[in-house]
Amino acid sequence: MSEQQPLSLPLTERSRSELESFRDTQQAAYDELVASGLKLDLTRGKPSAEQLDLADGLLALPTTTTTPDGVDSRNYGGLAGVTALRAMFAELLGLEVEQLSAQGTSSLTLMKDVLSYLWLKGGVDSERPWGQEEKVRFVCPVPGYDRHFTLLEWFGIEMVPVPMTDDGPDADAVAALVANDASIKGMWLVPTYANPTGQVTTQEVAERLASMPTAAPDFKIFWDNAYALHHLTPEETKSADIVSLAAVSGHPHRPVLFASTSKITYAGAGVAFVGGSRETVTWFHDNLGLGSIGPDKVNHLRHLEFFGTPQGVRDHMDKHRALLAPKFAEVERILTEQLGGLGIATWTHPRGGYFVSLDVLPGTASRVIELAKGAGVALTPAGSAFPYRDDPDNTNIRLAPSFPVLSEVTGAMEAVTTCVLLAAAEQLLA
Amino acid sequence: MSEQQPLSLPLTERSRSELESFRDTQQAAYDELVASGLKLDLTRGKPSAEQLDLADGLLALPTTTTTPDGVDSRNYGGLAGVTALRAMFAELLGLEVEQLSAQGTSSLTLMKDVLSYLWLKGGVDSERPWGQEEKVRFVCPVPGYDRHFTLLEWFGIEMVPVPMTDDGPDADAVAALVANDASIKGMWLVPTYANPTGQVTTQEVAERLASMPTAAPDFKIFWDNAYALHHLTPEETKSADIVSLAAVSGHPHRPVLFASTSKITYAGAGVAFVGGSRETVTWFHDNLGLGSIGPDKVNHLRHLEFFGTPQGVRDHMDKHRALLAPKFAEVERILTEQLGGLGIATWTHPRGGYFVSLDVLPGTASRVIELAKGAGVALTPAGSAFPYRDDPDNTNIRLAPSFPVLSEVTGAMEAVTTCVLLAAAEQLLA
Repeated sequence: MSEQQPLSLPLTERSRSELESFRDTQQAAYDELVASGLKLDLTRGKPSAEQLDLADGLLALPTTTTTPDGVDSRNYGGLAGVTALRAMFAELLGLEVEQLSAQGTSSLTLMKDVLSYLWLKGGVDSERPWGQEEKVRFVCPVPGYDRHFTLLEWFGIEMVPVPMTDDGPDADAVAALVANDASIKGMWLVPTYANPTGQVTTQEVAERLASMPTAAPDFKIFWDNAYALHHLTPEETKSADIVSLAAVSGHPHRPVLFASTSKITYAGAGVAFVGGSRETVTWFHDNLGLGSIGPDKVNHLRHLEFFGTPQGVRDHMDKHRALLAPKFAEVERILTEQLGGLGIATWTHPRGGYFVSLDVLPGTASRVIELAKGAGVALTPAGSAFPYRDDPDNTNIRLAPSFPVLSEVTGAMEAVTTCVLLAAAEQLLA
Repeated sequence: MSEQQPLSLPLTERSRSELESFRDTQQAAYDELVASGLKLDLTRGKPSAEQLDLADGLLALPTTTTTPDGVDSRNYGGLAGVTALRAMFAELLGLEVEQLSAQGTSSLTLMKDVLSYLWLKGGVDSERPWGQEEKVRFVCPVPGYDRHFTLLEWFGIEMVPVPMTDDGPDADAVAALVANDASIKGMWLVPTYANPTGQVTTQEVAERLASMPTAAPDFKIFWDNAYALHHLTPEETKSADIVSLAAVSGHPHRPVLFASTSKITYAGAGVAFVGGSRETVTWFHDNLGLGSIGPDKVNHLRHLEFFGTPQGVRDHMDKHRALLAPKFAEVERILTEQLGGLGIATWTHPRGGYFVSLDVLPGTASRVIELAKGAGVALTPAGSAFPYRDDPDNTNIRLAPSFPVLSEVTGAMEAVTTCVLLAAAEQLLA
């Protein structure tokens, strides 16, 4: 990677011999990488050990096992979770306490639960269980979160992609789809710092999604606010207030919110939340209660005591930011220095969340990922951010720089950009 | 209750005037009870605060967040749970480690999950998802656990009761039902210290259930071993080895085991387990993985460190026994002293578990429960131990003496027996 062409000359404007020379340079750099025996991983949005250390105060908590409202947290009961913890996160998420339930460690599990209840019993506004419909379809903004899509596949729910814009999902496209097709029962949305593209859904787009007419009376917005508090800049972007917007537009039960402390405290031992209208939360508990006598209230107390106040959560997120922002800056630096001006890649500049979304020369994403694998750098499989793993342009790669230490981010990104350059040269010469 | 008739004279053999006098005595005792303003609860099998205190060592654990196999328990991953904890409980439950998965806090949740997977996807030996069958039925030994039954109701699974015997469910009755009816897909069983009757399913009965021909190729035994280690005597009754029995009789995937530490450590913050053949556990994980990135491994480590060894679990159960056995002895004492020889009640003498099952004069169970409520003593609603809450003889009452302190058990049981006597006299005079 030492001898780059001038940044100002896009690869597509170079002559064949210039391209051949460029390819040979990149091939040599790549061979060097392979020989250096890297073993790096940019696949998943996992917190680093340093980030997890920030929450190690949890290990000595709680110091009391009685909740502020006098309940023995160690025993059965309390299906909705510890009230004071619900109140803390309700404030952070802009909800009333009755609009939020605190449960186990995983919001993904809560998403599966909600889908199960809709499938087997139907929602508060359903005519029948979704499983009794001839077909159920979901709108999926793309690129999106792979686990959202594989979950729908498990249920046999058909996915209809719509593009993300800078303001959130393309509301015109969504509105057109849902207006006349009653089989479209819902949509995914990561409203703040979307996975993987980082966009924040604006209040205006949220208002359109909340108010748009839908053929299905029980259309649901699965509002997965996984990164609500996960800012990468000092600006604490506020999430759109989907629950209020839906209520005022006459569709109070449309949104179902999800959030968790997985990327706030411990990824594997945090607290997950599900919210919506009071009726939605009651409906959730009514179904949950058949298979639960209450969540882990000791862990709720542990978190309550650790944070103290909603501001305590915000302050804690500042410490995450101090660890994460330099890694994202490093990704940005290397992408700019290595790929800038060559006309073969664009990427996102997230102000929060866990990912950078890289679009390489169309047709080369799977080749880049294959090359990176050969050089010991694991990337999320090609197409992962699309329903059925089908990236129609074979262009998108999700980069997750949170887990490796900073020097590994540097090494991994230098390797990735070499692979991007080599794959582009190969394709342009093919 | 001071002036009892001689214990040797059954109520049914007394003259009308003797009965009237008996009723008046009980009515006076009952009126006294009401006036004394009790507020006691024998409804649920909840551990007492003293029992929960036994596990308070958990609050300072774990002292390391790295699992014995080198995994950071705080992060995502490890769908099957912490291996060393699985190994500990596999030994206690008579399984191989690969036959057991460690998950969240509730085995009831795991039962609902397994039913969901069977319903939506089918089991390893299913021809199709259960939800696509015209009808699904379950064999339910009665009396049984109310939450088992309400869970089946939620799925719309029809329940077929069979009687419990002293050796477990009536195997002849079960075998006859399942032989020719392919809609019967499974059965519940609490094999050791059954809820509420306390019977232990013998190895012989288990062998018959494991080997019996079933019209459904994917018949499942939901083997809810909630009280496997919960002995009330020094004799540590060993549970029947259903997984091996099923394997040798050619139905390896028939049993699905459930267990938890809910009544070992914390009822609301323990660890739950699901087990069976390796294929069953793999199948469970394959479906679980769509909605989980792994269970709370920190809590797994917390439990692993707390117990140290399988023997550590057994030793811990001895401490529970020391607290529980006197309460069960008190129930037995009062039932014998107050109801013995009167010909109006029989009850179980459990050697483990959490319940005493009391059969009062047929037709009076709901009246007893109503009277008790009037006297401030909460009992499980009439019929709870039967599918659809339908106790055909209106005779069964489940007593749960674990939660109240000993003096409250005494007070509650004296009240209950007064209600039993009054209701019997009322009925015999009606």
